[in-house]
Amino acid sequence: MSTIFSKIVSGEIPAHKVAESNDYLAFLDISPLAEGHVLVIPKKETDYIFDIGDADYMGIWMFAKIVAAGIKTAFPCEKVGIAVVGLEVPHAHIHLVPINHIGDINFSKEKLKLSDEQLSVHAEKIRHELAKLTNAE
Amino acid sequence: MSTIFSKIVSGEIPAHKVAESNDYLAFLDISPLAEGHVLVIPKKETDYIFDIGDADYMGIWMFAKIVAAGIKTAFPCEKVGIAVVGLEVPHAHIHLVPINHIGDINFSKEKLKLSDEQLSVHAEKIRHELAKLTNAE
Repeated sequence: MSTIFSKIVSGEIPAHKVAESNDYLAFLDISPLAEGHVLVIPKKETDYIFDIGDADYMGIWMFAKIVAAGIKTAFPCEKVGIAVVGLEVPHAHIHLVPINHIGDINFSKEKLKLSDEQLSVHAEKIRHELAKLTNAE
Repeated sequence: MSTIFSKIVSGEIPAHKVAESNDYLAFLDISPLAEGHVLVIPKKETDYIFDIGDADYMGIWMFAKIVAAGIKTAFPCEKVGIAVVGLEVPHAHIHLVPINHIGDINFSKEKLKLSDEQLSVHAEKIRHELAKLTNAE
């Protein structure tokens, strides 16, 4: 059975995508800890992040680095924090979360409730910043 | 002024080291979220992880991958989780934390209080597992 994330990759389930390459995909978390909270996944299904082969493992971290730059300009914050927990969906995913306080990465706290329209606007904002960053290179 | 982590790198402040390379260092967090909680840092002081140059950035993630394998066999757990927050010490550091539940990565929760002797034993346990993994290659 494919994971919910593989269904997002295949297009079976919609998502607010912010960046995509041949091997990786970044989209908004629909239960965000903060506005601009993004998930980065490998398109190929692997449960545990440390089981990803070295080349793809380095690739996903490089991809996350680029996405984080787009998040930080779209949603100004002290830093973009990183978390990989991976106990709920058996498909490795990197959380990129705009943070201003040490307690901002805490999956036990109540998630934001954002409408589909709000998420659409946020995704577009990050895509827009990423496009600017890419053009500036 | 050099950070507390640079002082650990230089040996000015002691630490329970578990792995070291030319560019990176891994040692036990003295206020751990779980037994086997390790910090991985670049020896060269950089505040924000995404500001590390691409080669060193990929290098530290590869180094963390190896260390995580040693942690997982030394402290059996569902997964080794990852967190990078970086609002307290201005020297990038990757938390590697043995986790079994989604709430296990939460820096607001009370930390374990372990004695220096206990931390010594834990560091030795991880170094031992890493040595076995390295010899098996």
